[in-house]
Amino acid sequence: MEAAGERSLENGEVAEKKEEPSIKEGSIHGFESLHRLLEASLSPQLFQEASRMLLGLNCGCPLELIALPEFSASLSEKHDFDLQAFCFRADKETLREPRVVRVGLIQNSIALPTDAPFSEQKTAIMQKVKPMIDAAGASGVNVLCLQEAWMMPFAFCTREKRWCEFAEPIDGESTQFLQDLARKYNMVIISPILERDLKHGETIWNTAIVIGNHGNIIGKHRKNHIPRVGDFNESTYYMEGNTGHPVFETAYGKIAVNICYGRHHPLNWMAFGLNGAEIVFNPSATVGELSEPMWPIEARNAAIANSFFVGSINRVGTEVFPNPFTSGDGKPQHSDFGHFYGSSHFSAPDASCTPSLSRYRDGLMIADMDLNLCRQLKDKWCFRMTARYELYSELLDRYQNPDFIPHVIVDPLMQKRP
Amino acid sequence: MEAAGERSLENGEVAEKKEEPSIKEGSIHGFESLHRLLEASLSPQLFQEASRMLLGLNCGCPLELIALPEFSASLSEKHDFDLQAFCFRADKETLREPRVVRVGLIQNSIALPTDAPFSEQKTAIMQKVKPMIDAAGASGVNVLCLQEAWMMPFAFCTREKRWCEFAEPIDGESTQFLQDLARKYNMVIISPILERDLKHGETIWNTAIVIGNHGNIIGKHRKNHIPRVGDFNESTYYMEGNTGHPVFETAYGKIAVNICYGRHHPLNWMAFGLNGAEIVFNPSATVGELSEPMWPIEARNAAIANSFFVGSINRVGTEVFPNPFTSGDGKPQHSDFGHFYGSSHFSAPDASCTPSLSRYRDGLMIADMDLNLCRQLKDKWCFRMTARYELYSELLDRYQNPDFIPHVIVDPLMQKRP
Repeated sequence: MEAAGERSLENGEVAEKKEEPSIKEGSIHGFESLHRLLEASLSPQLFQEASRMLLGLNCGCPLELIALPEFSASLSEKHDFDLQAFCFRADKETLREPRVVRVGLIQNSIALPTDAPFSEQKTAIMQKVKPMIDAAGASGVNVLCLQEAWMMPFAFCTREKRWCEFAEPIDGESTQFLQDLARKYNMVIISPILERDLKHGETIWNTAIVIGNHGNIIGKHRKNHIPRVGDFNESTYYMEGNTGHPVFETAYGKIAVNICYGRHHPLNWMAFGLNGAEIVFNPSATVGELSEPMWPIEARNAAIANSFFVGSINRVGTEVFPNPFTSGDGKPQHSDFGHFYGSSHFSAPDASCTPSLSRYRDGLMIADMDLNLCRQLKDKWCFRMTARYELYSELLDRYQNPDFIPHVIVDPLMQKRP
Repeated sequence: MEAAGERSLENGEVAEKKEEPSIKEGSIHGFESLHRLLEASLSPQLFQEASRMLLGLNCGCPLELIALPEFSASLSEKHDFDLQAFCFRADKETLREPRVVRVGLIQNSIALPTDAPFSEQKTAIMQKVKPMIDAAGASGVNVLCLQEAWMMPFAFCTREKRWCEFAEPIDGESTQFLQDLARKYNMVIISPILERDLKHGETIWNTAIVIGNHGNIIGKHRKNHIPRVGDFNESTYYMEGNTGHPVFETAYGKIAVNICYGRHHPLNWMAFGLNGAEIVFNPSATVGELSEPMWPIEARNAAIANSFFVGSINRVGTEVFPNPFTSGDGKPQHSDFGHFYGSSHFSAPDASCTPSLSRYRDGLMIADMDLNLCRQLKDKWCFRMTARYELYSELLDRYQNPDFIPHVIVDPLMQKRP
C-alpha cells in the first residue's frame, strides 16, 4: 500500500525526502509519524512491544492490514499520497451478524497559492482530492470524511473577510461535486465546508454536510464550540452551531461529526454518544505548536469513554497568505500560522487505534470496523450504566447560576500563603 | 535518583532482572516502562523526538529533573523502590508569584501473602510503605497520595466477605499512622482506604481521607462510580459514594480525589474541575489485561480538558488469594486476577506528562508543579468559556427520562440491511 522506499528509515536516521526535513534540534517536525520512526529504529520484537503500548493492542497481535486493490495503490503512487488501511477486530456474536463497515479519512494540503483566484483554488483542491476519493471508492470504502473546510485555505488567522467568498450554501458547488462521487461509489461522504446560510441573512457557519450513498443530502451539523485561541479565533467568522448533536442514520451505521475544536470538549463527544453514534468523525485543522501533544489523546479518550469509533482528520502543510498578520503573541507579523501536521487516524472503543497518516503528505486512511464492537464495549465496561447522570445534570444546572458556589472544604488549620 | 545499572537496557535487549521477564511473544509485561525501553533502544536524538511526542513536550526541551537529597536516593536503593522526580514549567506572571508545589505518588505491592493474619498483613504494608513516605518527606514533598485501598490486598475479585475486616473508620489505624507522618513532614497526605462507616449501620465505602499538614483530618471523599467489570465487580462490597465532588483547600493548593474507575467518566473529572480543583489524584488498582491501553490516555485527557494537574497511581504486582475463584469468562478457576502494572505518573494541563514509574516495582514519583499553570491554560484555551454548559444540562435532564428520544436523522433513501 505504500510506495517502496517510503519506509526506508534506517540506522536511526530519517531519510531525506522532499517534504521531510531531517530531525533538527528543537524541531518537532522531524519524522513522518512516531510509528514509522519507531518501526525504522527498533528491533522487530521491541517495535511490536512498543506498538502494543502505543496503539493499545492488548490482544497481543498487531493490527491486521487490509489488502487494497492495485488500482488504489497506483493512485497513491502517482499522486503521492499516503495510503494506509487497517482492520479493527470484534468478537463474533451468536445473535447478531458482524456489521463491518469500511471507513475512510482524507487529509490534504491546499493545491494553489492563496493569492490565486478563488475559483481556481477551489477547483484545484477538488482535482487534488478526487484521486483520493477515487482510491477510497475503488477500495470499497462505505463512509468517507474529508477535513474541516476542505474546499479552501484555512484563512481565518488573517481576520480578513474576503475569505468568506469561499462560503457555499449546503447544496453548493462542492456538495454537488461530492454528490456525484457518493452516487458513483455508493458511498456516504461527510463534507465539512464553510457554509453560507442564505435563508438566515447570509449567516456564516462551520458546517459538515452528510451526503447519503445515493447522493442525497441527509442533513448537516454545525460546529458547536468555536475556538478563541490564538490564530484560531474563528469567532471572527462564524457563530456557535445551532444544530445540536444530531446522529445520522445512514445505510452503513449511525454517524456524527464533532468539528475541530469540539474535540476538546468531553461533553460534546458525550452528547453524540447519548444520541447513539457508532462512528464520530473529527474533521480538524490544527498546527503543531499548538495542539500536537493533545492530538493522540483526546480522540482515543472519546472513543473509550463513549464506546464509539472516532475518525480524526487534520489538514497538512503550511499555508502562506498574501498579507502578513500578527498573532497577539508579541512576535513580528508573519504570513503563515504554522504547520498543519496531518496525522489522521482511527480510534476504537476498546482503546486501540491505528498508526497515523503522514505529518507532511496528503493521505487516505482506511479502516474496517465491526460496529458490533461498540455494544460489546458497553456491555463490558458499563460506562453508561455507572455514569450517574443525575449528579451531573444537577451540577450543570447549578453551575450556570452566576452565583454558583463551588463545593470546597477548607482546612481550618491552613495558614494561607501571603 | 536511580540505582546505577537499573537503566542498563542496551542493544535493543531488555536486561534480565529478578522481577522483569524478558520480552516474550504475546506478553505485555516485557519492559519496565515504554519510556525506558525507548531510552535504551533509540539514539539520543531520536529518543528526544519520541519523548517530545509521547510526553507532550511541545516546548522542545526535555522535562527537567529535580535533584533530590542523597538520603532519598539511599532509601530507594535500600528498599528497592523506583524513585523519579520531574519539574513542570509554567510561565512567569507579573501579578502573581509562582505557586510551586512538590507532589508525590506512591505505588506498592502487598507485603505478605494474603493468607497471613490480617493484622500482620496490614502492619507489614505500613512498614513497607513507610520508607517511601520518609523519602517523600525528606524530599520536601508537600502533598502525597497513596494508592487505592493501600492498606490491604485488592481482594474484591474473590467475592468473599471476610476481607471486609480490613475496613476501618475514617480515624482508624491507618489514618493515625499517616497523621503522625503528615505532622512530622508538614505534608498533606491522601489516604485511600476501605472505610467502615460506623455511624451508618457499618456501611462499607471506598474512601479517600485527606489529612492536612498538621495531621488533622480535613475531610473525605467516597468513590463515585463503582465498577461492575469482570473481577472488578466491586459493587459486591460497597455502594456509590455520597460525598459529591468535594475539593479540599489545603495549605498547598486545591486538591480532589477521583478514585479508580471514576477515571473512565469524563463527567466525574469535570465536576472536580468545576469545583475548582488544581490537582486531582486518581488512586487506582487495575490490571494489564483489562486497562493498560487506556492508562496513558484518560488521565492526560482529563488534565487537558479541565486545566488541572492529575496524579495517577496504580498498585503493582500480582496478588494470589487462598481460595480459587472464577471470573465469569469461562476460564477455569484461578487464584489471582492479573498483574497490577504500576506505571504511576503525572499529567499537566498543557498536555505534557512525566514518564511512568516501573511496571514491576514499588515506587515514589515526585513532581514540582507551578499551580499557576492551571489558570494560564484556562486563559489560553478558554475551554470553560466555550463549553456551552446549558446545552448539556438540558440534554442530561432529558436523557434521564426513560422515554428519552435520541436526536437521530434517518436517511430516507436508506435500505436497511436485513
